[in-house]
Amino acid sequence: MMRVYLDNASTTQIDPRVLKEIVFHLKNTFGNAGSIHKEGVEAKKVLAESRKKIAEFFGAHSDEIVFTSGGTESNNLAILGIFKSRFGLSADYLDSKPHVITTEIEHSSTLECFKQLEKEGVDVTYLSVNEEGIVNLSEFKKALRPETVLVSIQYANNEIGVVQPIREISKALRHFRNNSSAKSLQLKVVENRGAIFHTDASQTPAYLDCNVERLGVDLLTIDGQKIYGPKGVGALYVKRGTLISPIILGGGQEGSLRSGTENVPMIAGLAKAFEICGNEREKESKRLTKLRNYFYSELFKMTGTKMILNGDLKNRLPNNLNFSIKGVDTEFLTLQLDAKGFAVSTKSACLDSGAGSYVIRALGGGSWRSKNSLRITFGRWTTMADCSKLILVLKKILKK
Amino acid sequence: MMRVYLDNASTTQIDPRVLKEIVFHLKNTFGNAGSIHKEGVEAKKVLAESRKKIAEFFGAHSDEIVFTSGGTESNNLAILGIFKSRFGLSADYLDSKPHVITTEIEHSSTLECFKQLEKEGVDVTYLSVNEEGIVNLSEFKKALRPETVLVSIQYANNEIGVVQPIREISKALRHFRNNSSAKSLQLKVVENRGAIFHTDASQTPAYLDCNVERLGVDLLTIDGQKIYGPKGVGALYVKRGTLISPIILGGGQEGSLRSGTENVPMIAGLAKAFEICGNEREKESKRLTKLRNYFYSELFKMTGTKMILNGDLKNRLPNNLNFSIKGVDTEFLTLQLDAKGFAVSTKSACLDSGAGSYVIRALGGGSWRSKNSLRITFGRWTTMADCSKLILVLKKILKK
Repeated sequence: MMRVYLDNASTTQIDPRVLKEIVFHLKNTFGNAGSIHKEGVEAKKVLAESRKKIAEFFGAHSDEIVFTSGGTESNNLAILGIFKSRFGLSADYLDSKPHVITTEIEHSSTLECFKQLEKEGVDVTYLSVNEEGIVNLSEFKKALRPETVLVSIQYANNEIGVVQPIREISKALRHFRNNSSAKSLQLKVVENRGAIFHTDASQTPAYLDCNVERLGVDLLTIDGQKIYGPKGVGALYVKRGTLISPIILGGGQEGSLRSGTENVPMIAGLAKAFEICGNEREKESKRLTKLRNYFYSELFKMTGTKMILNGDLKNRLPNNLNFSIKGVDTEFLTLQLDAKGFAVSTKSACLDSGAGSYVIRALGGGSWRSKNSLRITFGRWTTMADCSKLILVLKKILKK
Repeated sequence: MMRVYLDNASTTQIDPRVLKEIVFHLKNTFGNAGSIHKEGVEAKKVLAESRKKIAEFFGAHSDEIVFTSGGTESNNLAILGIFKSRFGLSADYLDSKPHVITTEIEHSSTLECFKQLEKEGVDVTYLSVNEEGIVNLSEFKKALRPETVLVSIQYANNEIGVVQPIREISKALRHFRNNSSAKSLQLKVVENRGAIFHTDASQTPAYLDCNVERLGVDLLTIDGQKIYGPKGVGALYVKRGTLISPIILGGGQEGSLRSGTENVPMIAGLAKAFEICGNEREKESKRLTKLRNYFYSELFKMTGTKMILNGDLKNRLPNNLNFSIKGVDTEFLTLQLDAKGFAVSTKSACLDSGAGSYVIRALGGGSWRSKNSLRITFGRWTTMADCSKLILVLKKILKK
C-alpha cells in the first residue's frame, strides 16, 4: 500500500539530495578532523565548508555554529551551559535566586532542563499562552527582572506549529537590558549584557526566516531530522561573546563547547539540508500554506463547528494543522488512518502517553481536548492528491 | 596515489557491509521510534533488534544498553551520571569527600570529567602506570577506600594500545566491596553495592573479549567509529541496578537515561559493526598480531636500539604499535609518510598539539619522547603488502 507520511514535525524523511551527500562522505570522508594526515585534513575541510554554509543560512559567523547530536542536546547545552558558565557547578546562589523565563508549551528537552534548574533553586517563570497559543508580550515584559539570566522561547511549537513573536520579544528584552539598573546578581549578569535569549528553532528553517540578527537571539537550536536532514546531528548557534560552558567534556572540539570526534558525514548532510531549505523556503511555504488551508476548509465542511483548531491559523507553520473533533478519539483515529496508509500523530513523539498534551492544555483546551488532538504535518513530498485522498478517507471514517 | 590508512585507533573507515545497512535504513527507516504509526513502529522494531544484537555481543540484557552519540558522551554519562545520581546536582559533599580512582593515561573525555569533579571537591586518585603502561594491581588495592564511589579504567589505551587487567581489577574491587566496613559516606555507597566500576572499551570490541560478566564491570563505553561503524553513535552498557542519572534531558528516551530521538539508522549500523566484530574477532586478531609483529621486527632491524617501543608488546591490542626513534621528529615523519600515501599519527587526535602525549609521559618517557612518538594502528584492510611497502618507505626516509 502507498504510504502518505504526514508526521513531519516529529521527524522528516531524508531528502535524496541530502542522502547522496551523506553516502558520499560516509564512503570518502571518514578521517578524524583532528588528524594531520590527508584523511584528517579532508575531513577538516568538509567540516569547515559545512559550518560556513550553515552559518550563512543564519546570517552568522562560522565560529558561532557548534555542532551537537541534535535538537535535544542543543537545548540542553543552551540552557544548562549558560547556567554552568554563570554559576559554576555547585549552584551556590547565595541570597538572590537567579531567574529564567520560558513558556508552558516548550519542547520537553527545554522544560526538563528548567525543571532540573528549579530543583537547584532557580526561579522559573513559565509564561502562559493565549487560546491561540501565543505568548503575551506585556506578560513577558512584566516577567523580566534584573536577575533574569536566561529567556528561552521556542520559535515555532512542535505540536501546534504556532509561531511566537521572537523579534518583538528580543526587542523588549534589549530595551529592558538597556534600562534596568544593576542589582546584586545583576552585576554578574551585566558582564554578559543582561539576560541571554535562546530560541529553539528546530521546526522552522524550512519555512521561516532564521536570520539571527533579525531575530535578535543569542542562542538558537537547530535539528537535522526536522529539515529533511539526518538524525543524530544538530547545532547550537552561539552569538560571539556569549559566555557558555560545555556539558560534554573531552578533547575540546567545537571551540571546547562540544567534545567528541566531529560527525563529518552527517554534518555535511546537515549543510546540504540547509542549502535546500534556503533555496526552496519561500516557494515551499506558499505551496504548503495553500495545501494546508485547502485541507482545513474541506475538513471544516466535513465537521463544521465540531472541529476545534488547536492554535492560531495565521501565525503558524505552513505545514502544520492540529485539531480536535468533538466526540472523536484521535488515538483511535490515528490508528485507523495508519491502517489506510496515512501517518499522522496525536502529539509529540517525545512524550509519555496517557497524560495528554500539555501544549493543548495550555490553550485552555481542558483534559479531553488535550488527549484528543490530531496533528497533521505536511511535508516536502505531500501533493494535493495526497490531501484529497486523506479527505476522502477521513470522511468515510468520521461517518461511522 | 594509493592511500594506506594506518590510523585506525583514531577512527576507522566504515565497513561496506555496515554502510549497506546504514544506507538502507537512512532510506527506509526514517520514522520516529516514539510514534505509533507504521513508520514509527518499524523504527522501534529496528531499534529493538539492534539493541538485542549489541547486548548479546556483550553478554548483557537489552535494557542494559543505552545509546549515545559516541564514546565521549558515553564516558561523560558514566562518570558525571554516577555522581549526579549519588549526590544530586548541588555537589554538597558535607564533611567527607567522595573519592574516585582512575589512571593517568585515560582518554581526554574521561580525564576532563574527573577534572571537573575535582573542582567540585571530589578526591581523585590518578593511578600511575609502569614503564610498560600497565596499572599496578597492588597500588589499585591500596587506593581503594570506603568512600570510593567510582573506578574508571580504560580497557585498552587509545594511544599505546596497552590492555589493562580489567578482570583482576574488578575482582579486587569486589573483594573490597565485600570486606570493607560501612562508614559515613559509605552508607550511601552501600545502597549501590559499593564503588561502581566503569571501563572505556572503545578500542577493544574488534580484538578482545568484551563479555561484561567476565570483565566484571558495571559500566562500559562503546564507540561506533572505532569498530568500522559510523561516527556519532555509541552506547553505554549500564548493569541492571546501577543508579545513574541522565546528563541530557528531555523526552525520556533510552529508559530516561538519554533523551533525544533515537538515531535508528546509525544504531542499526552499529549493530552490524558489532556483528562483524563478533564473527571476525579471533581470526582478525591473529592476522593483525602476526602483521604487527612482522612490522615490529623489521623496524627493529632497521633502527636497532634507537627505537623505543612505547608500552608493553604482549598486553597490547593486536593492531597497535607506538614507538619513538632517537633523533627522529615524528611529527615531521608523519607528514613525510603522509606525502608517500601512509596515514599514521603522532598521538590522539583528541588533544591539542604542542604539549605532547601525557600517555607517553606517564610511561616515564620524558618530554622529548612524549612529543616524538609515532602511532601506527593497522586495520581490517591492511595487508602484508601494505606493511612491506611501509617498511621500504620508512627505510628511505630514515636513511636521510
